[in-house]
Amino acid sequence: MGDPAGIGPEIIAKAWEQRAVRGLPPFFAVGDARAVTKVWQGPVRVIRDPAEAAGAFDTGLPVLGVADGGEITPGIPDVEGARCALRALEMSVGLVRSGAAGAIVTGPVSKAQLYQIGFSHPGQTEFVAERCGISGENAVMMLAGPDLRVVPITTHVPMASVAGLLSIELIAAKGRSTARGLARNFGILNPRLAFAGFNPHAGESGKIGREEIDLIMPAIEVLRAEGIDASGPFAADTMFHGRARTGYDAALCCYHDQALIPIKTLYFDDGVNITLGLPIVRTSPDHGTAFGIAGKDVAEPGAMIAAIAMAGDAATRRAAVTISGA
Amino acid sequence: MGDPAGIGPEIIAKAWEQRAVRGLPPFFAVGDARAVTKVWQGPVRVIRDPAEAAGAFDTGLPVLGVADGGEITPGIPDVEGARCALRALEMSVGLVRSGAAGAIVTGPVSKAQLYQIGFSHPGQTEFVAERCGISGENAVMMLAGPDLRVVPITTHVPMASVAGLLSIELIAAKGRSTARGLARNFGILNPRLAFAGFNPHAGESGKIGREEIDLIMPAIEVLRAEGIDASGPFAADTMFHGRARTGYDAALCCYHDQALIPIKTLYFDDGVNITLGLPIVRTSPDHGTAFGIAGKDVAEPGAMIAAIAMAGDAATRRAAVTISGA
Repeated sequence: MGDPAGIGPEIIAKAWEQRAVRGLPPFFAVGDARAVTKVWQGPVRVIRDPAEAAGAFDTGLPVLGVADGGEITPGIPDVEGARCALRALEMSVGLVRSGAAGAIVTGPVSKAQLYQIGFSHPGQTEFVAERCGISGENAVMMLAGPDLRVVPITTHVPMASVAGLLSIELIAAKGRSTARGLARNFGILNPRLAFAGFNPHAGESGKIGREEIDLIMPAIEVLRAEGIDASGPFAADTMFHGRARTGYDAALCCYHDQALIPIKTLYFDDGVNITLGLPIVRTSPDHGTAFGIAGKDVAEPGAMIAAIAMAGDAATRRAAVTISGA
Repeated sequence: MGDPAGIGPEIIAKAWEQRAVRGLPPFFAVGDARAVTKVWQGPVRVIRDPAEAAGAFDTGLPVLGVADGGEITPGIPDVEGARCALRALEMSVGLVRSGAAGAIVTGPVSKAQLYQIGFSHPGQTEFVAERCGISGENAVMMLAGPDLRVVPITTHVPMASVAGLLSIELIAAKGRSTARGLARNFGILNPRLAFAGFNPHAGESGKIGREEIDLIMPAIEVLRAEGIDASGPFAADTMFHGRARTGYDAALCCYHDQALIPIKTLYFDDGVNITLGLPIVRTSPDHGTAFGIAGKDVAEPGAMIAAIAMAGDAATRRAAVTISGA
């Protein structure tokens, strides 16, 4: 559910309302059931075990009520809500790790509140990765919209430090994880990776910076030698229009805004964050808690619906591979 | 016309074909008339003086044939073509400076060819600025689409040098020129300027970089003290979706790709480059020579049409101000 005072509970409920028309797989919410009933008049089915979820799903939104959110006031976050969000996150990861659930979709949380209760990870992604025994470095954040997937090679770091952080090893590692993640989660067996240049016009053959020549091109060569369809570096500004987007399955970008500007410009309301490189499937709607509109019944569930659908598809694909023994 | 072997001549001719339906003001091409007749079957009216253009415009594309392009082969640039493009550019600037024409629209050129004939400016913008007695630094590049205008504060420089180039003075100067340019060229008398942050999430209050606190916020304060409606710094990734774009008249961005990615993602085929801070009106279609498709009758004239329309509007506004004595 994410933060109980955010729009998480509302958009989960609204996603349940659209379960049939959108063909969503059975899902259940994890958190304080009151966070849902405060903002939604529809039927809630409190469950005690994930095994009950599928049976309850047809008649109401199943809620596994593992966490007490304190006095929940939509739009007004507090530390009790943050504790509730963290317990729900922890429980959900455990359920997916144990096989009791097929995938986790994380609702939006307030990092400011989480930091106050001692949460020390940069975000939910790193927390989930750690609980899966994966270093945060090896978890790859991919943002996906209807016809665009982007991966930032560096994420929440100062821009002045990006040039120093880029390396052939890092770029190749992100490309490798992305290629593997596209195969496992999206069924794209030979994904086409397009790498963005770092400098304007991808450096114009070294005239405007050398990262393309010294780092990105060698990383592309490494990936090609491993049989991965990697191309670029391309001028970032001309990589994301409609015709260009048909040329690749994922764009790998050097820094946060290079990846996030195009996806949020195009798909602000329905972008999905999927973490690659984990032993489990984890997606998330690519937006925040939106406290300003929480409890007003105006939150758009598009991104949550897309995140649930993507998680379901990825879990089904992975299960098929496991069953077939591949 | 820009490079005679590029798509410039073709898209000018196609713009003339649409003059009535798009309500374009009278215009004439400057360059080698054969560059047009090689790729277009429509009527060409060779003129010897700009004063003949308006009368000829109804019956054919007026061409002021000041330059000999040598052996013109569409798609294959050479130094003769570059000389032709440069002479046409030089002549056009002179005509606008003298008042014989109302505005200049520059066609796409090949910088690689221009450099071979001794052209030493980074681009046409700086050349035009110099001929107008303005330093290239004070000419402001704005990219405009139907509902988005962006200004990069730094342009064709290595990314690793951007942090060092940003200063309160530079940011404020670009904001000032942009505000003035929006008033003069677009008739927006109290323009709303939105400044993008430099770091991810606009630095998260200094946690991910300090340029927002140390440079951008102080520059915004300087502009506000001058009565300019400046706001931000905003997280760049959430500034450019449809609802966000209604909140400002121009977005000022810290570096090339931050500005160019959103405009080219949204308006790849009809973006216009307009230079602010000049004593004359200068626009340009925001695309290159496209040698690969030159002479094949497939080039889209949308950006050229938009550039001509914008130049006409801006020239009319400036003339009105001059006449009214403001």
